[in-house]
Amino acid sequence: MDEINSFGHGNFGIIAGPCSIEDYDSLYQSAKILKEMGIKYLRGGAYKLRTSVHSFRGLGDSGILRLARVGQELGLKTVSECTQIDKVDFMAKNIDVLVVGTRNMQNYPLLELLGKIDKPVILKRGMAATYDEWMAAAEYIIENGNEQVILCERGIRTFETETRYTLDLSAIKVMQQKCGIPVIIDPSHAAGNRALVPSLAMASIAGGADGLMIECCVNPCESICDADQTIEPETLRSIINAVVDLRQHLNRI
Amino acid sequence: MDEINSFGHGNFGIIAGPCSIEDYDSLYQSAKILKEMGIKYLRGGAYKLRTSVHSFRGLGDSGILRLARVGQELGLKTVSECTQIDKVDFMAKNIDVLVVGTRNMQNYPLLELLGKIDKPVILKRGMAATYDEWMAAAEYIIENGNEQVILCERGIRTFETETRYTLDLSAIKVMQQKCGIPVIIDPSHAAGNRALVPSLAMASIAGGADGLMIECCVNPCESICDADQTIEPETLRSIINAVVDLRQHLNRI
Amino acid sequence: MDEINSFGHGNFGIIAGPCSIEDYDSLYQSAKILKEMGIKYLRGGAYKLRTSVHSFRGLGDSGILRLARVGQELGLKTVSECTQIDKVDFMAKNIDVLVVGTRNMQNYPLLELLGKIDKPVILKRGMAATYDEWMAAAEYIIENGNEQVILCERGIRTFETETRYTLDLSAIKVMQQKCGIPVIIDPSHAAGNRALVPSLAMASIAGGADGLMIECCVNPCESICDADQTIEPETLRSIINAVVDLRQHLNRI
Amino acid sequence: MDEINSFGHGNFGIIAGPCSIEDYDSLYQSAKILKEMGIKYLRGGAYKLRTSVHSFRGLGDSGILRLARVGQELGLKTVSECTQIDKVDFMAKNIDVLVVGTRNMQNYPLLELLGKIDKPVILKRGMAATYDEWMAAAEYIIENGNEQVILCERGIRTFETETRYTLDLSAIKVMQQKCGIPVIIDPSHAAGNRALVPSLAMASIAGGADGLMIECCVNPCESICDADQTIEPETLRSIINAVVDLRQHLNRI
Repeated sequence: MDEINSFGHGNFGIIAGPCSIEDYDSLYQSAKILKEMGIKYLRGGAYKLRTSVHSFRGLGDSGILRLARVGQELGLKTVSECTQIDKVDFMAKNIDVLVVGTRNMQNYPLLELLGKIDKPVILKRGMAATYDEWMAAAEYIIENGNEQVILCERGIRTFETETRYTLDLSAIKVMQQKCGIPVIIDPSHAAGNRALVPSLAMASIAGGADGLMIECCVNPCESICDADQTIEPETLRSIINAVVDLRQHLNRI
Repeated sequence: MDEINSFGHGNFGIIAGPCSIEDYDSLYQSAKILKEMGIKYLRGGAYKLRTSVHSFRGLGDSGILRLARVGQELGLKTVSECTQIDKVDFMAKNIDVLVVGTRNMQNYPLLELLGKIDKPVILKRGMAATYDEWMAAAEYIIENGNEQVILCERGIRTFETETRYTLDLSAIKVMQQKCGIPVIIDPSHAAGNRALVPSLAMASIAGGADGLMIECCVNPCESICDADQTIEPETLRSIINAVVDLRQHLNRI
Repeated sequence: MDEINSFGHGNFGIIAGPCSIEDYDSLYQSAKILKEMGIKYLRGGAYKLRTSVHSFRGLGDSGILRLARVGQELGLKTVSECTQIDKVDFMAKNIDVLVVGTRNMQNYPLLELLGKIDKPVILKRGMAATYDEWMAAAEYIIENGNEQVILCERGIRTFETETRYTLDLSAIKVMQQKCGIPVIIDPSHAAGNRALVPSLAMASIAGGADGLMIECCVNPCESICDADQTIEPETLRSIINAVVDLRQHLNRI
Repeated sequence: MDEINSFGHGNFGIIAGPCSIEDYDSLYQSAKILKEMGIKYLRGGAYKLRTSVHSFRGLGDSGILRLARVGQELGLKTVSECTQIDKVDFMAKNIDVLVVGTRNMQNYPLLELLGKIDKPVILKRGMAATYDEWMAAAEYIIENGNEQVILCERGIRTFETETRYTLDLSAIKVMQQKCGIPVIIDPSHAAGNRALVPSLAMASIAGGADGLMIECCVNPCESICDADQTIEPETLRSIINAVVDLRQHLNRI
């Protein structure tokens, strides 16, 4: 099961958890189930960038502290999105891996600060960013001193609207070769449709991805945001089994 | 090796061959190598839709007859693109599988005629076609009486220009479920870059594709058109081995 | 009023008429009203490329003959889309200006035949065609001997879905300079929304367009296809007045 | 000349100035020329969001103070982009109109702070933002208490690469009707090509825009960034004359 817990250089990681951090009990419950599956990276959002000013925007600082507490209690590494420059220090103190979301890929003041911390940073691709712009954004972090950058393809905006975004799996090889850093895939936000997550997860592995970030919680249908793509733990378990099996098979070849 | 020679319903096919049919010797040479690898579908273009009026546009009817001859000599099924309504009968008489290219996906007069023949038709996705428009195009063929339709995702046009098109692997599950017909992938034309073909081919299989169409010839660098994505036979052989192995593994699960 | 009846070289034309040719009376009625407004180009579709196989697809040959008859009776030049190679001769015999629609911009066999007739050809931009691909398509007509090519921008496919397509008015200057041939605008099909047609028509003129193609009929709400963007004659009259006035003003500067 | 100095409700404004604030002399020189043309809004960037970490990124705070000083000396209103939350107060104290750039349209923490100041905010459209997402971003500012929002269309990202972005002039009427707030156009950044600026500026006016933002400086070719689209003062003068004349004509109708 070490198979699924680090990124790049032949290793492979799976990050899972709910879209938003909600109450302590449901977060702990989700996290415990994930831990039992062998997952060591727990994600959850505290500062949500919601398109509508009227949407639930997360628990903020208290959400981060709750995620950190659950992580410590269960021995899980924590992963969460940093959305503003004045939260970088607070998050770097409490969270293990910081995420830059698609809407902030070109928030250069944020990238510069993330270049000065000593925590891994997952840089999601801007929904309209070219490979070169994405690489240039990674350089903002790296040139400021933090080389622990992981790229995350999460779908680009195209004319097709049946999927929320179009997952671009060519990005795996292109960016690995162009940047020499790990590339993971978020099939949940790309598809916006839980029925597509297993297929896209398997395609990502076979295409050479260094990891997956998957949205999952105990009761997907009651998730406050992004419910359409959130999978149930049973589906995640079967994805993990298939993915681990596929990776072992591919490594044997 | 039956593994790689039919489409859908649990079967899986690989179509390979040069972009354009060229002289008899090099076509025969390519085809013989493909046959030795276990491939039974030989592709080659005779009527090329080239963006520039000054580009080589294929050998026309004599190319079709040459492809048919090589197919018969080697016992390979032949696959070629039909680009105009006045060639449907001629091609249906000589070729085993007809292809509708991306630029003709909404050439409805052509689709209607292809609905009246008794040969399988591979319908490539229009480079700017939504899933619904693609399905509607397939219906033009089916409603005219020909139910042997195979869909082929070959990349859509997006803002990213480093790859020629953006291969949309979500199309596999979406279209299989929406239409109930096989979906194959053309990684060569999508990427426009031979270095990406192996990764995208493997991702396609793991994502559930029913087949692959791959551009390959004896001497890729001398290919008259589309040379950038054409792979050498050795690369194709290793892709086929990996794909067959992966399919067998996935089927065992 | 000569102001609105030719294309390019300082002249400016407006083409108007219904999306599809319907019964004789309503076509004649629409055409008479257009003639009274000073318009000399009557459009109407006979062979419709409809996305769904179940949609009304036009009257075919009899529609062309009806359009030609109304044109002759009222002294109007006729404009209609040619969708297949086996209709080129028939249309060239009966219609004054042939149109290549967006779905056929890269139907090269059709373009080649249109290069051999002696009638003006309006080449609409493919919905996913770059400027260079559009110019290359025009060259297929010109290099085959027909220099009477008029380009028509009708919107490109983007991620924005509130308008049917995104009208790209930069195309006016880019293509005039690149190709040296007239560029007209179809605001009706671009917007898919009659409320936007007046604004886009005026923007086109001020941006330097050589003409407009506008969908209009006597009873827009009963139009069989494309009803959302079809304007009423009164709106067309006010657009024409504003456009003629604007052109005169711009020419005085 | 009052004609060109306010936005919306029948008024029309032109904002002009260099991309980046450079040395005092060249800024003063440019500003003086603009003032002589009748322009009252002077723009200039101090915090530049540059794609490459190696590009010139503006003078920062001292640039803002320089812009404010030149504005006061010449009696011009100042306009500049605010790129991070910790600069909102400083800019609101020194600058008359704050701009949110395309890369920050969904930087919600920034929008919320801009909703709490008493200065007009120009909200540029995200390069991949739909009309609805753009409106939702405007609501972040308005619902936090600042109703002085002006929308600025500056081009969206499409497959066409000959222009830097595709200017979407349908946005004028759609957003005016949807939001009831002024819509101005930035033809310079949309086109990325000075040859297209006059045509797009005129099209914007005729299409109903409430204002223009144009990049201009004394010596365009020496401009440190974005030199391709920067026009010379003489070109700006002729655009202003044509625009004022066109507005007066349209208002008379």
